[in-house]
Amino acid sequence: MKNLLIKVLVALLLFPIAAFAADSLPSWNDGSAKQSIIAFVEKVTKPGSPDFVPVPERIATFDNDGTLWCEQPAPVQLYFVLDRVKALAPQHPEWKTTEPFASLLKGDLKTALAGGDRAILQLFMATHTGMTTVEFEQIVKNWIATARHPKTGKLFTDMTYQPMLELLAYLRANGFKTFIVSGGGIEFMRPWAEQVYGIPPEQVVGSSVKTKFEMRDGKPVLVRLPELNFNDDKSGKPVAINQHIGRRPIMAFGNSDGDREMLEYTQGGSGARFELLVLHDDATREYGYGPAKGLPDVKLGAFTQTLYDQAKKNNWTVVSMKDDWKQIFAFEN
Amino acid sequence: MKNLLIKVLVALLLFPIAAFAADSLPSWNDGSAKQSIIAFVEKVTKPGSPDFVPVPERIATFDNDGTLWCEQPAPVQLYFVLDRVKALAPQHPEWKTTEPFASLLKGDLKTALAGGDRAILQLFMATHTGMTTVEFEQIVKNWIATARHPKTGKLFTDMTYQPMLELLAYLRANGFKTFIVSGGGIEFMRPWAEQVYGIPPEQVVGSSVKTKFEMRDGKPVLVRLPELNFNDDKSGKPVAINQHIGRRPIMAFGNSDGDREMLEYTQGGSGARFELLVLHDDATREYGYGPAKGLPDVKLGAFTQTLYDQAKKNNWTVVSMKDDWKQIFAFEN
Repeated sequence: MKNLLIKVLVALLLFPIAAFAADSLPSWNDGSAKQSIIAFVEKVTKPGSPDFVPVPERIATFDNDGTLWCEQPAPVQLYFVLDRVKALAPQHPEWKTTEPFASLLKGDLKTALAGGDRAILQLFMATHTGMTTVEFEQIVKNWIATARHPKTGKLFTDMTYQPMLELLAYLRANGFKTFIVSGGGIEFMRPWAEQVYGIPPEQVVGSSVKTKFEMRDGKPVLVRLPELNFNDDKSGKPVAINQHIGRRPIMAFGNSDGDREMLEYTQGGSGARFELLVLHDDATREYGYGPAKGLPDVKLGAFTQTLYDQAKKNNWTVVSMKDDWKQIFAFEN
Repeated sequence: MKNLLIKVLVALLLFPIAAFAADSLPSWNDGSAKQSIIAFVEKVTKPGSPDFVPVPERIATFDNDGTLWCEQPAPVQLYFVLDRVKALAPQHPEWKTTEPFASLLKGDLKTALAGGDRAILQLFMATHTGMTTVEFEQIVKNWIATARHPKTGKLFTDMTYQPMLELLAYLRANGFKTFIVSGGGIEFMRPWAEQVYGIPPEQVVGSSVKTKFEMRDGKPVLVRLPELNFNDDKSGKPVAINQHIGRRPIMAFGNSDGDREMLEYTQGGSGARFELLVLHDDATREYGYGPAKGLPDVKLGAFTQTLYDQAKKNNWTVVSMKDDWKQIFAFEN
């Protein structure tokens, strides 16, 4: 009985990995990108391998917009801002004559955003602050449950990349802890990241506003203040990784210049490291933007030629959505 | 075979909880404190119980100084500061004539700290910043490996409370994720918290300085800057819990006024909640400080009468180290 118990236990422990190894990434075409991922995971998880990494150090960080879900024609959080401005407009009659709100309410996004970072910050603060954290969480939950992509008409949460969902599950099955490290709002992502990505709130890192502890009617609450706490982009990403995780990732995934420093920081550690960038080169099934293959460059979420050259020089894996992904969205089938 | 496999699997799944239930808290005397902990854990983990809490929401937060390890005659991090000032003094001849360094180097702690918060901040910045995060981690590791408590002569890491180590293990065995939420430095605790408490770096929350991403000789590093980033004390604790964890704890443990808001915030959530304060009333085996039973009050790490009254009013569990703990330190036996 004891021997049988041990055999069953060993079988149970080995089972998940063995099962996944069959084909844990079915939406990925066989090619160098898929092979580079599997080769890396196998070498860092194989006991006795010179590249073996203990489970607690298997940290993988993922950008969100353009890496885990679609960020075109505009980042999802911007649609949230637009809808919130419309919803709040009746309480703010002054917005009818005040920019950037006035243009936004007329549907003229271009003029609204002409004010640059200052206008964007104004729109974010007006829609993201002034309420408690619990109230904001509920606002986001209500919105994400029904908000739809302007082109496909699908829920934004269905605009997640099937190959990346498989990758998240594959890494977790191999003992990795998966984190989001995004320029997006930390409290905009947390309410749905667990259900959509299997990533719990404590593993979501993002940009944030300051909050203040207060007693309201004898109840302790945190109030969201109209003041930026942290901008989790570019060189802010390694800073936030250190602050939240306290360990250097061994794998990092991004798709734009905003992820450069996260990938550099990941690669700069000792031992085996893996970096990957998603290239949006499939205008038919998704959107075509970025430097390679003659695609037009875009400002927001840009994958510049400089980044592309650096990726090639540093041996970062570049995923061609067109060639490397058999399927992009789950709803395609 | 299939039935047997299921039986074995079920047995294996149930085993850890059943085993711990025997007596997972052997260093706790039987009494209301121990009983309140076990009763709470049993009701939130029992499937079908009206108070059942799903595993991902079983978040427990612990203060460190005075809650998990001894903070007398002074917080451990202050001894680190003293030793670092001595070690760095040869590189800073000006310290011989500059306060608060001059008095500190003469061994006159009282005069050194007479400058109040400003003096303390100066001492911290001089010893905690200017190096990379990797360098600082190594400095802490080297120090903690040999630094000893001035009274007992034991390593500081042996000055951890055995009943609390048992409690951490008991909670984790019951599906809880355990976090440190301390006024101490986040990067002062992370290098040893995993080994000493079983709490990984990503579950350590504390005070911090700002860091800056830089390339040094082509290598990406984070440099620790002489600027406070966050003071994780009092109302800062709920703010940091929200920022790092993104969920309200269902259990919180502290020992001083600095933990009041963390316990209030924990209690303010819906569903079953548990709050506990450790009262230092054992001058023989540890230190006697705090309001109750006629003990003298102390400023640092104070458990004031106001807090004591609030604990009683709010039904927070108050642990008497003298009466509730059979053993305080592992080295006692």
